[in-house]
Amino acid sequence: MAKARSALPRSCICIVFTALSLVCVQAQTDPLPSWNDTAPKKAIIAFVEKVTKEGTPNFVPADQRIATFDNDGTLWVEQPMYVQLAFMLDRVKQLAPKHPEWKTTQPFKGVLDGDMKAVAATGERGLVQLMAATHAGMTVDQFQKIVTDWLATAQQPRFKRPYTQCVYQPMLELLAYLRANNFKTYIVSGGGVEFMRPWTEEVYGIPPEQVVGSSIKTKFEMVDGKPDLMRLPEIDFIDDKEGKPVGINQYIGRRPIAAFGNSDGDQQMLEWIAAGDGPRFMLLVHHTDAAREYAYDCESSFGKLDKALDEANAKGWTVVDMKKDWKVVFPPGI
Amino acid sequence: MAKARSALPRSCICIVFTALSLVCVQAQTDPLPSWNDTAPKKAIIAFVEKVTKEGTPNFVPADQRIATFDNDGTLWVEQPMYVQLAFMLDRVKQLAPKHPEWKTTQPFKGVLDGDMKAVAATGERGLVQLMAATHAGMTVDQFQKIVTDWLATAQQPRFKRPYTQCVYQPMLELLAYLRANNFKTYIVSGGGVEFMRPWTEEVYGIPPEQVVGSSIKTKFEMVDGKPDLMRLPEIDFIDDKEGKPVGINQYIGRRPIAAFGNSDGDQQMLEWIAAGDGPRFMLLVHHTDAAREYAYDCESSFGKLDKALDEANAKGWTVVDMKKDWKVVFPPGI
Repeated sequence: MAKARSALPRSCICIVFTALSLVCVQAQTDPLPSWNDTAPKKAIIAFVEKVTKEGTPNFVPADQRIATFDNDGTLWVEQPMYVQLAFMLDRVKQLAPKHPEWKTTQPFKGVLDGDMKAVAATGERGLVQLMAATHAGMTVDQFQKIVTDWLATAQQPRFKRPYTQCVYQPMLELLAYLRANNFKTYIVSGGGVEFMRPWTEEVYGIPPEQVVGSSIKTKFEMVDGKPDLMRLPEIDFIDDKEGKPVGINQYIGRRPIAAFGNSDGDQQMLEWIAAGDGPRFMLLVHHTDAAREYAYDCESSFGKLDKALDEANAKGWTVVDMKKDWKVVFPPGI
Repeated sequence: MAKARSALPRSCICIVFTALSLVCVQAQTDPLPSWNDTAPKKAIIAFVEKVTKEGTPNFVPADQRIATFDNDGTLWVEQPMYVQLAFMLDRVKQLAPKHPEWKTTQPFKGVLDGDMKAVAATGERGLVQLMAATHAGMTVDQFQKIVTDWLATAQQPRFKRPYTQCVYQPMLELLAYLRANNFKTYIVSGGGVEFMRPWTEEVYGIPPEQVVGSSIKTKFEMVDGKPDLMRLPEIDFIDDKEGKPVGINQYIGRRPIAAFGNSDGDQQMLEWIAAGDGPRFMLLVHHTDAAREYAYDCESSFGKLDKALDEANAKGWTVVDMKKDWKVVFPPGI
């Protein structure tokens, strides 16, 4: 053994000591530096510490540490309109030269004239027509490229930068903190699943297979002599409100132990998760910060927060007051 | 540094040397010991080595190493009938005392009389009725318990042991080998997703969120005063044939690089995967072993293999001849 010991190269010893010191630094570092030291941050950390402490009654094995996040208004900006709606409107304008009839037909005319009241007047039927014209009739790979190209140039109108830079720094830290504690983080959004999957890994560290969302039907068929998947102009599933627990069960197959949202669209997801056995964590982001982002709740067309906020207050779910609880809203340096 | 070196406890050094020797053993160990040294085994290993060799043109990053496996006839026995069908028939018998009308109504009468011709004569409508009576009308958690309880006692009629012990040892080794090479292994089955999820982790090491299958609709509602998911007597999605690529895209959101099946139900999955860019691996298990398992292909009611075998032969996909290529079929010692 003495010989073996002296044969250990110096570099090995350095690695051991560096690793040990990294562990010490890690333990002292604040995992949520963009959160003020207020109740939500304390509640998050207390929950994570509780479920990861082996040998205690609240310990949750790593494979059951599933956390689901709404996207619009929870991870990125949803004002002045949902990003996917901005994409749809831009795409109508881009495709308009090939559709001269759109100049005189609603809801397309309204989009081209910037008359959103006329668009809204066409109701759900109009929305489905817009969706069919902009989201269907191409393969899934082609749609992925269209989304990626659009996101590379489109800008959020107030902050004048790409939408993927209008994500909430405190939530990025929360995602990383949960993953560092062996949580599997999922997006569960009313937005289109194929609108999100091309960029969620780069922006949030969430791979395509951990994104649950609304979908349109697809069909296996030969395209240019190759088997491919064509997107059809037909709604398959709406992953919103009562649809969120259904979508989670369909895709993930087990009930998460933590869920994060910001609107009435997330209410049923939070209710369903709260009703499970064992420790649970439910959080709503309340947009209260008109100066740094937006302030809205029960009157908003996008991300309306009304009944879910009442329920959160009644049941003691964690509510983030963006203005008070977040030191910064967006990632620094952008 | 000298002090630090002498401070390293003997146990640390032992751990380092044990780890090193384990690595050496690992490198020499056959990852597929139940496979004969024939073409399929060589093709599998060549593919895995090719896509995991960094710095070469065929290297595939770990996050894209997705492999999909059919279940019935690919991972476990599907003769003399699909296991889920056996479950359905048993459940009709179990529920019959509460449904006296079944004694005189098809397809239930046929099931109770053991008259499968009469059941078959009711066609798809009869099958949906059986499904509705046995798979719906309870919460997802209740159904999970029903499946788990049934599997604990039901026996495969020929091998006289639980179905979960009628899994193919060579395929278990293949799953483990792929995962050891950072593949993410998925089930993509025509079987019900909620029939498989309760046991796939224990039996195959595949967690619920990596199981794609057929589904019935579920509905979020209050059950005994708690928010829950109720299973409805309505088909949601059939994950078979053309449905398999659709299901993979829906659940996983990217095209796998390897797929494993055994019947015409897997043909489109293999075609779609074969059509992707970069290295691909497609494999069919051909059941040729009446002595150790079953021998069947183009004439079989369950797991019919006809057109997919022609295509595999024409395109050079790997075909396992169970009799020639597998040393053992089932796990040893059961």
